[in-house]
Amino acid sequence: MKLTFSPGSPFARKVRIAAIELGLIDKIELVPATVAPTQKNEAYAHDISPVRKLPALILDSGQVIVDSYNITEYLDELAGGGKLVPASGPARWKVKTEHTLIQSMTDALLLCRYEMGVRPKEFFWQGWYDDQWDRAWVGLGQFENHPDILTRPLDAAQISLVCILGYLDFRFADCGWRKAFPKLDAFHERMLQRESVKVSVPPNG
Amino acid sequence: MKLTFSPGSPFARKVRIAAIELGLIDKIELVPATVAPTQKNEAYAHDISPVRKLPALILDSGQVIVDSYNITEYLDELAGGGKLVPASGPARWKVKTEHTLIQSMTDALLLCRYEMGVRPKEFFWQGWYDDQWDRAWVGLGQFENHPDILTRPLDAAQISLVCILGYLDFRFADCGWRKAFPKLDAFHERMLQRESVKVSVPPNG
Repeated sequence: MKLTFSPGSPFARKVRIAAIELGLIDKIELVPATVAPTQKNEAYAHDISPVRKLPALILDSGQVIVDSYNITEYLDELAGGGKLVPASGPARWKVKTEHTLIQSMTDALLLCRYEMGVRPKEFFWQGWYDDQWDRAWVGLGQFENHPDILTRPLDAAQISLVCILGYLDFRFADCGWRKAFPKLDAFHERMLQRESVKVSVPPNG
Repeated sequence: MKLTFSPGSPFARKVRIAAIELGLIDKIELVPATVAPTQKNEAYAHDISPVRKLPALILDSGQVIVDSYNITEYLDELAGGGKLVPASGPARWKVKTEHTLIQSMTDALLLCRYEMGVRPKEFFWQGWYDDQWDRAWVGLGQFENHPDILTRPLDAAQISLVCILGYLDFRFADCGWRKAFPKLDAFHERMLQRESVKVSVPPNG
């Protein structure tokens, strides 16, 4: 299998951590890819995904699977199922919902990054930036007060949580999340003891 | 169960269609909700979702499920499973991938809408608008040449496809998608013969 990958992408990192934890990383070739807003990449759009997002998993059959969550679930099933996503019951929908919330919060941070670092300065809109930032920050505050996700056995929502925190270090190093959210800080430190989390820290993180 | 809902939301429409097709609509109370960029909604952020998106399903137990895809999968399982999302094998990952692509394309159209209709005019950036529009348009072109999704039995990806086309009528009525994509037009007409699709057309569509 091949995985389109960039070391700065929190979504590609999520899949990399999942693949290591599931014992599948040796079966995956990481293929560097560059996608960015307002930069056409017609080959990627044609062969992989018209929305030009990372990561995508390309199976040996040629079938392409997007997005990072679907890939995580696919790898989980390949590894026997029920490991990173509970197989059934309320716990399944809880992990899926938490994962989706954290994915949306990460999307909001990417929109902040594009607003501040990609958009021409004269078109910057503070109201949009603040609104997207608020979505991520309020969400992190809710997880700070959510002891369950911070202490239970490893799952896809936790992996997503460590990836959004790593992305804050990578792109918003001065935002002060550790001081605002001490329990998330302790969770992040514990997660960093895992080889999968440690080797996948973004390059400037 | 309760579903937070707005008649203009393509994501809420998707769940409504799925619930009707699965025979579950009578068990769901549609609860009107208003969320919009740069408008705080602290009650929604606190009780339902910090990212303030529609729809959310609130179970009788109080458990909240987001987003529209997770809700569709949840309802599908409630109805016996394997109806709108194949239960296993390559067909499962195909429908999930197609659905995710169309969801991302719809997100791109919402970003176009916000850029053009919500952002103050002096901060409009044509490059961003064109890039997001391209993601949706290129994706529609790929589905135009993808006879499988246009003809197979009803599934979650097809429901998503009809909802993005309805959203184009609702917000981008002059974009000319019917002329550019005649096979999608024929698919849309066929889908409109379903009561679920017909009753859920957006108000100005």
